[in-house]
Amino acid sequence: MAANNRAWFAGREILALNLVSSPGSGKTTLLEHTIRDLHHERKLYVVEGDQATAHDGERIRAAGAPAVQVNTGTGCHLEADMVARGLRELQPAAGSVVMIENVGNLVCPSMFDLGERAKVVILSVTEGEDKPLKYPHMFRAAEIMILNKIDLLPHLNFDVSEAIALARTVNPDIKVFQVSARSGEGLSDWYAWLRAELSKAREAAFA
Amino acid sequence: MAANNRAWFAGREILALNLVSSPGSGKTTLLEHTIRDLHHERKLYVVEGDQATAHDGERIRAAGAPAVQVNTGTGCHLEADMVARGLRELQPAAGSVVMIENVGNLVCPSMFDLGERAKVVILSVTEGEDKPLKYPHMFRAAEIMILNKIDLLPHLNFDVSEAIALARTVNPDIKVFQVSARSGEGLSDWYAWLRAELSKAREAAFA
Repeated sequence: MAANNRAWFAGREILALNLVSSPGSGKTTLLEHTIRDLHHERKLYVVEGDQATAHDGERIRAAGAPAVQVNTGTGCHLEADMVARGLRELQPAAGSVVMIENVGNLVCPSMFDLGERAKVVILSVTEGEDKPLKYPHMFRAAEIMILNKIDLLPHLNFDVSEAIALARTVNPDIKVFQVSARSGEGLSDWYAWLRAELSKAREAAFA
Repeated sequence: MAANNRAWFAGREILALNLVSSPGSGKTTLLEHTIRDLHHERKLYVVEGDQATAHDGERIRAAGAPAVQVNTGTGCHLEADMVARGLRELQPAAGSVVMIENVGNLVCPSMFDLGERAKVVILSVTEGEDKPLKYPHMFRAAEIMILNKIDLLPHLNFDVSEAIALARTVNPDIKVFQVSARSGEGLSDWYAWLRAELSKAREAAFA
């Protein structure tokens, strides 16, 4: 089913990303800011995964992107068939970006392929530098680490270089963006990466 | 197996608590501070659950309490038999406190009874007020909510009364302590509750 999603995304030249993190690390705020800054140049759609509530879907729609909310009940992660059902409802345009916001959980979502181009793990600086070592499966599965809430660094004992070094001990190739999804600081590097990946999605459609 | 743990704790007049939260909400820091402040009056022991690493067990031992580290690998929660094995290694004294620090995860540990007297959920104020609604199973399963990192409130848009009100919509009886495990602010209420529960554990042994 994940392979099916992946082929469908390729055929439609869609860039699909699977956003994973602890609860409260700022995934939805990152998406809101990204949508506000990029929706004039590219259509974005969001599949929102949560155990319960429709809050995040509403926040995303208020930011300007279509969203479908998937509630997993007691489930701890999204699965590929839930995403497929969400896509049928969302009907994302060709050449668009589909962001899949997974259930907040640094453990289970690491083991489930949804057909995404890449997993993007968000780590907020309030969570401590050691998380990549303590949840190695997630940081190994991710291609990108977004270090969020850097606006709070002056109030914390958080060592950015140590956090990055620890992430690279479990995943030497992980790419890191340091951002504040609240203030917008650092987001331009994330946007540049998104634009580059969108071009690759277009080229890969016929590869 | 959980019932077995519970009976063993009762027979030994031990107060056992299951600490659950997102990754990085401050469970280990709370335990370090609690151990430093209380170990002269009561023996404390810690069963540390993590996917990987022995860091937290080392931090606990440095704070002055015996600890056993359980690594769950890809597992997303502790199970009762892991705790039982940890207890055989720890050999906690009669009348002591056993703190079980679960894997950082607001989803899976809610569904597993380890034989504890109560689940204590830690929510840090950097995670947002909506977490009780988005992870209702955990906040329903917990008897205590420790709102941590209140020293960061001046730098956040976090509404403490809203967070407590939302927790009470899913669990009207949840008891709340507002603390900073880093500075120590608010910990005296938590300690008073621990002392009261320890007395009850003594009385309940022969009930």
